Amino acid sequence: MFEAAELRREVAKMDYESEVARLRLELFELQRRLERHPFPLIVLFGGVDAAGKSETVHLLNEWMDPRWIANRAFETPSEEERERPPFWPFWLALPPRGRIGLFLSGWYLQPIFDRVHRTSSKAEFDGALDRIASFERMLADDGAVIVKFWMHLDRKAQKKRLRALARNPLTRWRVTRRQWNQWKRYDRIIVAAERLIQRTSVAHAPWIIVDASDERYRRLVVGTEICRALTGAFTRHERALAAAATAAPRHRRRQTRPRDLVGRVDLDRSILEALDMTRALPKERFETQLLRQQGRVYLAQRRAQAKRRTIVLVFEGWDAAGKGGAIRRVASALDPQCYRVVPMAAPTDEERARHYLWRFWRHLSRAGRVTIFDRSWYGRVLVERVDGYASEAEWNRAYAEIEGFEEQLADFGIILVKYWLHITKDEQERRFHERAQSPHKSWKLTKDDWRNRAKWDEYELAVNDMVARTSTRRAPWHLIPANDKNYARVEVLRLAADAIERALE
Amino acid sequence: MFEAAELRREVAKMDYESEVARLRLELFELQRRLERHPFPLIVLFGGVDAAGKSETVHLLNEWMDPRWIANRAFETPSEEERERPPFWPFWLALPPRGRIGLFLSGWYLQPIFDRVHRTSSKAEFDGALDRIASFERMLADDGAVIVKFWMHLDRKAQKKRLRALARNPLTRWRVTRRQWNQWKRYDRIIVAAERLIQRTSVAHAPWIIVDASDERYRRLVVGTEICRALTGAFTRHERALAAAATAAPRHRRRQTRPRDLVGRVDLDRSILEALDMTRALPKERFETQLLRQQGRVYLAQRRAQAKRRTIVLVFEGWDAAGKGGAIRRVASALDPQCYRVVPMAAPTDEERARHYLWRFWRHLSRAGRVTIFDRSWYGRVLVERVDGYASEAEWNRAYAEIEGFEEQLADFGIILVKYWLHITKDEQERRFHERAQSPHKSWKLTKDDWRNRAKWDEYELAVNDMVARTSTRRAPWHLIPANDKNYARVEVLRLAADAIERALE
Repeated sequence: MFEAAELRREVAKMDYESEVARLRLELFELQRRLERHPFPLIVLFGGVDAAGKSETVHLLNEWMDPRWIANRAFETPSEEERERPPFWPFWLALPPRGRIGLFLSGWYLQPIFDRVHRTSSKAEFDGALDRIASFERMLADDGAVIVKFWMHLDRKAQKKRLRALARNPLTRWRVTRRQWNQWKRYDRIIVAAERLIQRTSVAHAPWIIVDASDERYRRLVVGTEICRALTGAFTRHERALAAAATAAPRHRRRQTRPRDLVGRVDLDRSILEALDMTRALPKERFETQLLRQQGRVYLAQRRAQAKRRTIVLVFEGWDAAGKGGAIRRVASALDPQCYRVVPMAAPTDEERARHYLWRFWRHLSRAGRVTIFDRSWYGRVLVERVDGYASEAEWNRAYAEIEGFEEQLADFGIILVKYWLHITKDEQERRFHERAQSPHKSWKLTKDDWRNRAKWDEYELAVNDMVARTSTRRAPWHLIPANDKNYARVEVLRLAADAIERALE
Repeated sequence: MFEAAELRREVAKMDYESEVARLRLELFELQRRLERHPFPLIVLFGGVDAAGKSETVHLLNEWMDPRWIANRAFETPSEEERERPPFWPFWLALPPRGRIGLFLSGWYLQPIFDRVHRTSSKAEFDGALDRIASFERMLADDGAVIVKFWMHLDRKAQKKRLRALARNPLTRWRVTRRQWNQWKRYDRIIVAAERLIQRTSVAHAPWIIVDASDERYRRLVVGTEICRALTGAFTRHERALAAAATAAPRHRRRQTRPRDLVGRVDLDRSILEALDMTRALPKERFETQLLRQQGRVYLAQRRAQAKRRTIVLVFEGWDAAGKGGAIRRVASALDPQCYRVVPMAAPTDEERARHYLWRFWRHLSRAGRVTIFDRSWYGRVLVERVDGYASEAEWNRAYAEIEGFEEQLADFGIILVKYWLHITKDEQERRFHERAQSPHKSWKLTKDDWRNRAKWDEYELAVNDMVARTSTRRAPWHLIPANDKNYARVEVLRLAADAIERALE
């Protein structure tokens, strides 16, 4: 695989200087243009030691405006990082749209380190690479331009480079035992790198193998490839805009969709229609039941915390279905130090500038705590779908993205409980009127609520699709008949206690 | 101090219910109004166990719209928290303007715990309380409305409460050994609480001692006091707006200021004028010197990292003074894992919604790393002062706020190095023209640069004040003659190496 990168290509100084003058200008121009585009550029540098990875990052910071570049290198994970799924630090480090992120090794560091030191098997290495591939796929689907450089030196050239650095008293400090240890494992690194490049070099996130033996050649290749990637991305973006402009306007499509799908609505609706909406809990039994289930939840959470198991509760449901009341009953069963409620308000500009899952990754708690999401990432396939904030391609893709996200939570041992609080359309109307008349509750009722209600059928279709596509064995949906608030509140607690107890068995 | 809180006041159920109906409405209305105001409400709950702190938090979440309330309880600090100054988690948890933050114990937890367990002396306890007082003062100066409730139970009442909870099989889980241990230390807690309340109860952040023996009374007091605090804050805010409207418009004041201060300008200017601007480093010595100083910085930082000492470098200076170039020379002497450059762009909406120091607290690194600020918190007393983004009261206050911030860094063992890169007015003009003509650099020159240049004298006054008021023994300013770039770059490295080596001695 690396033969072509061992040709020791060289660039003469004069050629280099004229080329660089042109390249810098172009790179800078492209960076300016990127600022006006709704996607980031992610550049990742892998390769052997002393092949110039850091030097290239410094250079790019010199060639472009460093204020819009985020440089990130990752080291041994901190305690807080170890308490979350492995991709957490990478998610948090993603650059916003319009900016550039330069990553040294990034998400490839740990898999290759584990493989070279034989702490992971071939199969585990492949699994790690597959997870990386789907991470990059997700970023690319969201528009991110991804370029990955593998800086290659052959064994001899690497040794020569290290020796030269070590001989010079002024650069000696750059070469430590770590570098020599890595050099001794050269062959293993190359074998792992071949596999890595094979499995993760795809059109939307290609690996570019760079012959790093000549500094000037290396610099020109990196700069040129970044230019190429950005130019291509701008062209694709403009074409997509032009295509969207000539296509049928969105509102027409949305109007016709429900009619097309009438047959399917009736078929799918059964998931919610199958619920027994007469379920109720008499008031006299409610208080006792509530305290009993709260006690179970409290003790189960304490046990989970002792075992460092994190709990994530997701609340979705119709407007006025009683999410807030149910959440308060769960919260009051927990020590205030242990939980946080995350209500989904409008995203901030920092959130809007990134992949929609970023704001949820951001709120993942430390090990052993409880995070309660009052509405969640499912907004993508519910309100964003129905109101057209997400395109059909986007919300369709979201089912798989969400499954991948929840799988990472489950793999990490996080206990995930998802609730859909269901009320009938009549009951919703009753509650809306009650709210409108009650001085304490009228604020809860907004124009949006009536607007959403008018789209009940579209929402019902979306809910059915959501349950059908994201209720997995490890993360099932709990559909709760919530016409009786007391019943629903106790049921929420009971299911939480069940889920935690089961997970701890 | 707590005598009045031991009268065991009770509220009859009927009175309570009519009062609560009124109170909820008012609280909710005030919360809505708060959303339109440029300040947050911070409510802190202290007091003995079983006095209803968490219950009150849950209740307030029920009475108001919980989506705009952030509830925070703090537990044993995590590794990442221990690697930063003690106030770091509190800063990050501050609610944005317009919102409510409910804090359980918050910044008072650790001082009182340490004092009760005798791990801190009386003097240390007082010191901790003083730091809290200045933290709250700073938040209040920024507009935050702060109310603190101390939930009091006498020794007998607390015991009775704990026993009642423990007897009921449904609430038994709420009482653990921790609560009984705390009860045994009742007297010590009360002594510490008296001192705490004395020293930290001030008009802008009062402690309200609540007789917590009757649940209904306690709830009404808390609700009523929050209403009172918000109503008062709204009135003050409106008065301030009215006063500002009738006062002389700001631009007139800004025009007259420089003239008033002419005498002072000449006096102060000497700080920068005293610099020897002929300092230069011949090109032939530059390369060697650069590598030598980079080597020193590299080794010093490695030693600092081994000792978990964090380094913070602050770069300020005239436009075109060469900050970027100097920063790159420092960065390339460091392992990419160890440092991050934080350029000061326009604040995001999450940043604008909080105290101006929030965005700097946010970027403090873990122990042993280097953070390089390309412009910094000094923007408050430089550009914000000169351009009028900060009022005179605001930037005047900022000197003390900045000193307090830097003191916290120093107390934590963080090595802080501050640079002002100084060029002459002529040299700046030369560089501007050079930039305008160079295709690689023309982007660096914006209209703002010329605009700032026109205000050179005002800036010079601001720089002089800044140096005079914030150059302390522990965090001195390094004024660097930067007409010669090579000299300045080597000097920056040399001073960094000196500072780190000295700190490690």
